[in-house]
Amino acid sequence: MIIEYDGTNYHGWQTQLREVSIQRTIEESIERIVQERVRLTGSGRTDAKVHALGQVANFRSGTRHDPPLLKRALNSLLPEDIVIRKMDVVPLEFDSCIHALSKTYRYSVLNRADRCAVGRRYCLHLASPLHLEAMREAAAHLVGEHDFSSFRSSSCETRNSIRRVKRAELEREGDFIRFFIESSGFLHHMVRNIVGTLIEVGKRRWTPSEFLGILEARDRKLAGKTASPQGLCLMEVRYPEPEGA
Amino acid sequence: MIIEYDGTNYHGWQTQLREVSIQRTIEESIERIVQERVRLTGSGRTDAKVHALGQVANFRSGTRHDPPLLKRALNSLLPEDIVIRKMDVVPLEFDSCIHALSKTYRYSVLNRADRCAVGRRYCLHLASPLHLEAMREAAAHLVGEHDFSSFRSSSCETRNSIRRVKRAELEREGDFIRFFIESSGFLHHMVRNIVGTLIEVGKRRWTPSEFLGILEARDRKLAGKTASPQGLCLMEVRYPEPEGA
Repeated sequence: MIIEYDGTNYHGWQTQLREVSIQRTIEESIERIVQERVRLTGSGRTDAKVHALGQVANFRSGTRHDPPLLKRALNSLLPEDIVIRKMDVVPLEFDSCIHALSKTYRYSVLNRADRCAVGRRYCLHLASPLHLEAMREAAAHLVGEHDFSSFRSSSCETRNSIRRVKRAELEREGDFIRFFIESSGFLHHMVRNIVGTLIEVGKRRWTPSEFLGILEARDRKLAGKTASPQGLCLMEVRYPEPEGA
Repeated sequence: MIIEYDGTNYHGWQTQLREVSIQRTIEESIERIVQERVRLTGSGRTDAKVHALGQVANFRSGTRHDPPLLKRALNSLLPEDIVIRKMDVVPLEFDSCIHALSKTYRYSVLNRADRCAVGRRYCLHLASPLHLEAMREAAAHLVGEHDFSSFRSSSCETRNSIRRVKRAELEREGDFIRFFIESSGFLHHMVRNIVGTLIEVGKRRWTPSEFLGILEARDRKLAGKTASPQGLCLMEVRYPEPEGA
């Protein structure tokens, strides 16, 4: 499945506790249709208030409903802030998490004097003008294979902190600055910590080469603040082409 | 003042009853700052759930706070779904409603099979593919001076139903179709009734020349349904250049 959601009212894709998660909400709706317990495997977690236009998840079911019918039924049961964009049969061994080749995130900053009323759930507001060229220069240092320890959250438990970033670009769109990052994978809070640090570059607190220094130091204490979640959106997850395709 | 608001949680710009209106919300915040009763004159009303990026309103006050300070104070008091974008001193005789030369509205339709999760407060979802060229041809008939009785709501009390439309254009932007209309003024529900009728043209239920026939008939019963409010946004209000400018 490809899933779009507005994360505003959720505690994230998955939760340890009994709070409302997107994963559990979708599982419950599927269970009502297929009349059996299902367990969704997502491409990865997203934090509370983070959105997705292209989250991917899979589940196993013995249902005989075909995917288009299941998708329609599911979209009519799901709350208005979650919608299934695509549903297909995959090989039994497919795993949305393990087989993901890369993910693309977008982070949206509204960079103008006044805060945001229309669309405020989907961006971070920053009043002080950001220097886009400096941010671009800094972001270019992210591309390639690096140890991203400087940008992982202190609670991140992954052992291997090396990731391959394929793309790290900034675009201006009216008063918005959009940061796009595609990587083989992300550590916990990695995008938001990178954005928090790029913002300091945009404010001219740090130079692009100081940004590189922070990346190379592999020390979380040196990086900027974690940018707030509502600006973040999971855009796309890529997988290998199916064999024989 | 130029005002941006997310109309989702309001009963409209102005209400007859004691419900929460955008106008009253702003008036109360101004009153807290200037410590006197104020009365806002808006360029016109917007319905419940309709948004604005460029509503204009004026008020009289004896305050000695300068406009930038007043704007900052006001934005810190206002709820997060209303923000003042500009504040300036105008001549005493200025009236946001009477002196408006034209207003521009945008109506956003998400035209794809699946409903909308991210940004659903700001668009109407239509699953059946709309024929953009036919809609454009129909919309072109709106430009110029016409009696818009076919597109006024039955509760519209204005005597003169003639308005001059300066621009009526449709743009495709990804899965969105955006309708822009600039006019010397609008009758009650005029944009939403026009959009509801254009949608029928897009669905090929009516031809562009049947659309023209509906306009010319000056009969509300012939037009399409009133499109839902959340897709509508007041973009800009234009005024004469100040004298001597």
